[in-house]
Amino acid sequence: MLSESQSQTMSEYKAGPHLSQINFPEDLRSKFSEKDLEAICTELRQFIVDVVSEKGGHFGASLGVVELTVALHYVFNTPEDQIVWDVGHQAYGHKILSGRRDQFHTNRIYKGLSGFPKRSESEYDTFGVGHSSTSISGALGMAVANRIQKKDCHHIAVIGDGAMTAGLAFEALNHGGVEDTNMLVVLNDNCMSIDPNVGALKEYLTDITTSHTYNKVKDEVWNLLGKISKFGPNAQAIAQKIENGVKAALLNQSNLFESLNFRYFGPIDGHDVDYMVKVLNDLKDIPGPKLLHCVTTKGKGFATAERESATKWHAPGLFNKDTGEIIKVTPKNPQPPKFQDVFGHTIIELAEKNEKIVGVTPAMPTGCSLKYMMEAMPERAFDVGIAEQHAVTFSAGMATQGLVPFCNIYSSFMQRAYDQVVHDVAIQNLNVVFCLDRGGLVGADGPTHHGVFDIAYMRSIPNMVVSSPMDESELRSLMYTAQLPDVGPFSIRYPRGNGSLTEWKTPMKKIKIGAGRRMRNGEDLAILSIGPIGLEATKALEELDKNGISAAHYDMRFAKPLDEVLLHEVFGKFDYVVTVEDGCVQGGMGSAILEFMADNEYKAVVKRLGIPDQFIEHGTQAELYRECGFDCTGIVAICKELVGEKRKKLVG
Amino acid sequence: MLSESQSQTMSEYKAGPHLSQINFPEDLRSKFSEKDLEAICTELRQFIVDVVSEKGGHFGASLGVVELTVALHYVFNTPEDQIVWDVGHQAYGHKILSGRRDQFHTNRIYKGLSGFPKRSESEYDTFGVGHSSTSISGALGMAVANRIQKKDCHHIAVIGDGAMTAGLAFEALNHGGVEDTNMLVVLNDNCMSIDPNVGALKEYLTDITTSHTYNKVKDEVWNLLGKISKFGPNAQAIAQKIENGVKAALLNQSNLFESLNFRYFGPIDGHDVDYMVKVLNDLKDIPGPKLLHCVTTKGKGFATAERESATKWHAPGLFNKDTGEIIKVTPKNPQPPKFQDVFGHTIIELAEKNEKIVGVTPAMPTGCSLKYMMEAMPERAFDVGIAEQHAVTFSAGMATQGLVPFCNIYSSFMQRAYDQVVHDVAIQNLNVVFCLDRGGLVGADGPTHHGVFDIAYMRSIPNMVVSSPMDESELRSLMYTAQLPDVGPFSIRYPRGNGSLTEWKTPMKKIKIGAGRRMRNGEDLAILSIGPIGLEATKALEELDKNGISAAHYDMRFAKPLDEVLLHEVFGKFDYVVTVEDGCVQGGMGSAILEFMADNEYKAVVKRLGIPDQFIEHGTQAELYRECGFDCTGIVAICKELVGEKRKKLVG
Repeated sequence: MLSESQSQTMSEYKAGPHLSQINFPEDLRSKFSEKDLEAICTELRQFIVDVVSEKGGHFGASLGVVELTVALHYVFNTPEDQIVWDVGHQAYGHKILSGRRDQFHTNRIYKGLSGFPKRSESEYDTFGVGHSSTSISGALGMAVANRIQKKDCHHIAVIGDGAMTAGLAFEALNHGGVEDTNMLVVLNDNCMSIDPNVGALKEYLTDITTSHTYNKVKDEVWNLLGKISKFGPNAQAIAQKIENGVKAALLNQSNLFESLNFRYFGPIDGHDVDYMVKVLNDLKDIPGPKLLHCVTTKGKGFATAERESATKWHAPGLFNKDTGEIIKVTPKNPQPPKFQDVFGHTIIELAEKNEKIVGVTPAMPTGCSLKYMMEAMPERAFDVGIAEQHAVTFSAGMATQGLVPFCNIYSSFMQRAYDQVVHDVAIQNLNVVFCLDRGGLVGADGPTHHGVFDIAYMRSIPNMVVSSPMDESELRSLMYTAQLPDVGPFSIRYPRGNGSLTEWKTPMKKIKIGAGRRMRNGEDLAILSIGPIGLEATKALEELDKNGISAAHYDMRFAKPLDEVLLHEVFGKFDYVVTVEDGCVQGGMGSAILEFMADNEYKAVVKRLGIPDQFIEHGTQAELYRECGFDCTGIVAICKELVGEKRKKLVG
Repeated sequence: MLSESQSQTMSEYKAGPHLSQINFPEDLRSKFSEKDLEAICTELRQFIVDVVSEKGGHFGASLGVVELTVALHYVFNTPEDQIVWDVGHQAYGHKILSGRRDQFHTNRIYKGLSGFPKRSESEYDTFGVGHSSTSISGALGMAVANRIQKKDCHHIAVIGDGAMTAGLAFEALNHGGVEDTNMLVVLNDNCMSIDPNVGALKEYLTDITTSHTYNKVKDEVWNLLGKISKFGPNAQAIAQKIENGVKAALLNQSNLFESLNFRYFGPIDGHDVDYMVKVLNDLKDIPGPKLLHCVTTKGKGFATAERESATKWHAPGLFNKDTGEIIKVTPKNPQPPKFQDVFGHTIIELAEKNEKIVGVTPAMPTGCSLKYMMEAMPERAFDVGIAEQHAVTFSAGMATQGLVPFCNIYSSFMQRAYDQVVHDVAIQNLNVVFCLDRGGLVGADGPTHHGVFDIAYMRSIPNMVVSSPMDESELRSLMYTAQLPDVGPFSIRYPRGNGSLTEWKTPMKKIKIGAGRRMRNGEDLAILSIGPIGLEATKALEELDKNGISAAHYDMRFAKPLDEVLLHEVFGKFDYVVTVEDGCVQGGMGSAILEFMADNEYKAVVKRLGIPDQFIEHGTQAELYRECGFDCTGIVAICKELVGEKRKKLVG
């Protein structure tokens, strides 16, 4: 549900004459006829362009499904009928049509609308999404549940061709094909995930859409379907005939989805809203699992986005909606690079010297900057599609042959490959380097994308090194260290966004595994941090100095193994310690410190700062650090509190 | 490598006249001609029967691939050519042929051979396995690595039709289809995983094997392939022709694997060793990704196993090899049930009263005992195939519609669905009950199957309840509590094996979430345990009593939320505390206790017993508890040590 502050912020964005009459999908269905739909699509597209050009957010995906969105809400009785939007960054049109037009300008802003469908936000958001490829499983669960509860409604999963490459989607198809439900999977095929889609499935889909046989079959199918509308109430029996007709028509050209017992329809033009309404109406009457293959264009209807790279226009930032020019604020002084780019350039430097190094990304070559290596050394850098599990086990396979794979996966996506990290890499003690980009709070993408758990889940695993650099120079040295011979499984996590060094291309040096650093001496208490959030501690030191508090600061650098020499120094000297990490406090680096203390019977007072035991919503990273209490202000506050306690005891 | 004690234990099992000459696959290739292979298969099968009937272990799977095993090692130049055995419980024949015949009787015994292929055991074991569906990813990684390193060798993944349903396998096919490698996937199709295989893929494969068209196509293909052998060195050009021929032959009957750009061959009879040798020899010369579909029978060659349920003969225990009678030791007195059966019967009791309850298992209906509910209430219990990710997200989908799914997944397999637990269940705060069977050390299956990490990885997740019952009665009450309205995500872990109560069908009662139990008062120190390992603590109390040590014992029952009232009692009273859990010490329940202490500034000496920071090999559970130091003896030892320390301080 929307907070008061959200509903009070009225929108300055004007919807067109049709769209402004649509507060909920019911309005779309009751106030308009099919001939109005094209105009509604135009207005909806314009509204998205108006807001996103000035407020930012995902762009290409939502423009690509405008017609599909309108057609689905027009044909199906939402929210009784339930639509699950895979990933969900294409659901802006859906949000605008379902009660959130006037709040849409708060999209992805702190306390504003979520950038993804979210059950707590609207009953039209049937299933919270963010990570890809969950929609078929979710919708199948709903369909089976309503079959059990004898509730008659439709369940539609809308999934992209990129998301379809993930194992989860396949598992769901395999199960869905044998469940008697009226589930419809809409395959939104734009040949893209965020980067161009890869793999055999993509080639297969391209084959279909360009195949004359398929198009002929398609026409036969639709001719048959065209007749169904006329039969009215007797549709069930007719559907059976259609089924046989379809089977017969397809017999000589079986298909991947048909193999899995989904009836396949398409490919159809996903931008022809009238035709889609007709097709969806026909499909409503056909029982059993069905897949409709729609071909769409990411960025459709915005000329520049259609013409240029879809990756660029996935989430372009702010832009001039008239010229299509992306607005770049060029800072006067050189800025620190993004951590992802430090990774992207450094892996090439390392790979030029060490021929064993290869790079692997599951569908994030742009997001993690492996694209530079893919350009420079195409035979040694792999985009394996949305397939985190495979990315890890594939890396393990390469490591058995003596290569050193750098497998780059966002922290929250690495949750998808936890078993593979344990079972295929760590048990075999293979030298795979995991670069966990987006470790910690990521900002506007919110709870599904925050990289919260990785320090905790990685440090439980035997053989695994768990590290995080405080700055770009340290990242380079950790990468250098990780590729040295016989190092074993090695994880390096770093956050979304920019580092702190403009001169970042520093010489790489070997870091002793497990060695932390004393950044500053102090007297009153010690701050132990890991990762770039340590810079907040650095700021806090100055503030504490002003308050007459002398704090020491240690950059642990490794959550595992811990620097025991350094920790003996810390606990030998300090009775008050604060740990700081941009990760969950349950089981994180701070807990590792507590374990060290317990094992060595130290008795200091320790306060752990980090992400508390709740899911953190979206906002800027600075807003969220503050909310969690581990920005400079939060660190200063806890230090003051501890020193106050200490002085009270001394006095007492 | 084998330990000394292993190689010293000489086998009393005699191999047949051919098999006894085969110490390594090289012997198979150099000493024998094709006409000997059938006899070798017979002897290999007999050897497996001889040992497994008396020593136990997996049975049906290895018997089913005897011919395939002999053919692969005969045709391919192992270990230069690399075979990856998916799951690996079918690799007994492979082990016997590759240097481990005389140690094979130590299979799955403490310090003996592993029941699965394992890189540290033999260079013929190219990739450590245990969990299903890793083989294609692993072999693809090897193939790509050797392409990069310009090493010319073959890579073969042998995968069952059950394992093929997992998403990881699909992700690997999707990638493999576009990589130019000479990888061969052998699909070992016996219509089974451990239980009968389910899902659309299984139906599809059955269609293939019974389809006349396919068999006709198959014949055409093999006629073409039959000619290739005659062409000798010019094979490359011939292969191209074959390729076109195959394409043409298959054009009118495209196929799931062809859709993914794997050339499909088969189905062929996986028990005709001569024909398989011919086929594999032909396939060696065909470049690119290939899939050979072999149809086999689990338990082949052992009449009883062929005739009876393959599930029963998956790992039958000891049996009379002449009569096929499974040897059951019937105890005189009634024994406590297996925890899995308590789950299996209790869910039916609960579901009879609460119509919202449904059950879900990913391919383990027998192993987790959901089979009882599948029989009693088939419309409300689901085996979704080897598909842990889907099992969880499917459960989440059902929960959105008001159902209460009990999703039963072995602890170590739940690692496969970690993201789905976080992203689809916990973020949405849905009432899904996770029953984690095989939590803790599982025994003979070893490190791939030990359920080590679940307490740690579950308790990091907001909204998640993390519990473990000490006995069967407690399991029932936790299950009862978990299905009450609005409880949210709830996990219950319990170990492999039997409980402790013969009268286990006790009335269920609501347990306050987060409430632990004081089992016994004491004076000198406190033991805090979670789960049935607490019974070792109970035993330890008696032993400690005899030594004049008075220990209190608390059953925490919940690792999250912690019982803070109880913990204030504990730390208010005791300066020495021991925590005991059958899970990893890094981040586990003991660490949660340390976090509580830190947050509340308690300063007791705490020793945490649990699985240490290393992978634990196989053995009986008792052997492994002892090795890890948390059996009765280990608990007594640490308590004595602490009390000694305490008394020394008091004296000092």
